[in-house]
Amino acid sequence: MTIAPWRPALARALHRNRAQAYCRYLQLATVNESGKPSNRTVVFRGFVDEAIQMVTDSRSEKVQHIQACPWTEICWYFTVTREQFRIAGRITLISAAHDPDAVRLNAWQTMSANAHQQFYWPHPGEPRVSQAAFEPSATPSTAYPPDSFSVLLLTPERVEHLELRGHPQNRYLYQQTEGEWQLQEVNP
Amino acid sequence: MTIAPWRPALARALHRNRAQAYCRYLQLATVNESGKPSNRTVVFRGFVDEAIQMVTDSRSEKVQHIQACPWTEICWYFTVTREQFRIAGRITLISAAHDPDAVRLNAWQTMSANAHQQFYWPHPGEPRVSQAAFEPSATPSTAYPPDSFSVLLLTPERVEHLELRGHPQNRYLYQQTEGEWQLQEVNP
Repeated sequence: MTIAPWRPALARALHRNRAQAYCRYLQLATVNESGKPSNRTVVFRGFVDEAIQMVTDSRSEKVQHIQACPWTEICWYFTVTREQFRIAGRITLISAAHDPDAVRLNAWQTMSANAHQQFYWPHPGEPRVSQAAFEPSATPSTAYPPDSFSVLLLTPERVEHLELRGHPQNRYLYQQTEGEWQLQEVNP
Repeated sequence: MTIAPWRPALARALHRNRAQAYCRYLQLATVNESGKPSNRTVVFRGFVDEAIQMVTDSRSEKVQHIQACPWTEICWYFTVTREQFRIAGRITLISAAHDPDAVRLNAWQTMSANAHQQFYWPHPGEPRVSQAAFEPSATPSTAYPPDSFSVLLLTPERVEHLELRGHPQNRYLYQQTEGEWQLQEVNP
């Protein structure tokens, strides 16, 4: 498989911004059941083939949004190099219902015991319960993911890369049509 | 007018992160004409009463999105203090069609000559034209905004504040019902 033409630019941005742990944070937009947009920060968990991998609590609202409308656009701004990637495409949700699934198992096993903890916490977004429910003793880390653990795979169809440095800024648009990526330079 | 209860928390975040110029960058999600989400970085331009002010090129796609669906959610992550604000509400677009408008004029006049330039540039998102069209000599700065300059005012109806520091994280939900803000602490 040939590599998508926007991949080297994104790889370079990740490398050049690696001193900031938050360079792996991006904003994921979804549409909710009422047709309104929703937006939150998630963590980039590497690639699975061409897809951008993220994880989520299965009980999170964004899972319902994605089930109703799998389309998303992520916005990923890199502060050191001052560049932005907007990546639009369809999300595939891999939940416990897909077990056994190698991608989901692998995503779980590459995460730290500390990161595992929150998947044993009480229902996110519900009224806050007592501190005891969040204690490490109550949240075992296991070799296999709990039902609350889901993987999100975003398969890009459109990638826009904006470099703020330079006069004027550089803006590149990559679009996939019939399996082929086309690159066009556009006005910033 | 009493101040909204989430305002002090946001003001504190802006103050504590002020060493980073990009602390004023946030991600704005809209829904396009096909019902798909769209997401990009914009700059916070201060408050107008309770509304979060941003500016945009009137020819930008987001203007069409907002005209079709004024609902948005912004996601605003602060890297120094590790906290996130998600602010959902309706956007009011103030374009040249609203002239004379004091908010639009004021927004223009508080921006630098350098920031003014891009509103005289060729149509954003169209195929890239020659460098000459982006030269400062071709882009005069004037006392009054050109038609390409629009203001976006987001009136918050729901604000979610997440503090990643602490175990577990703290998550606060502010919702406006019948003009009154209600605060609830929820599970992270």
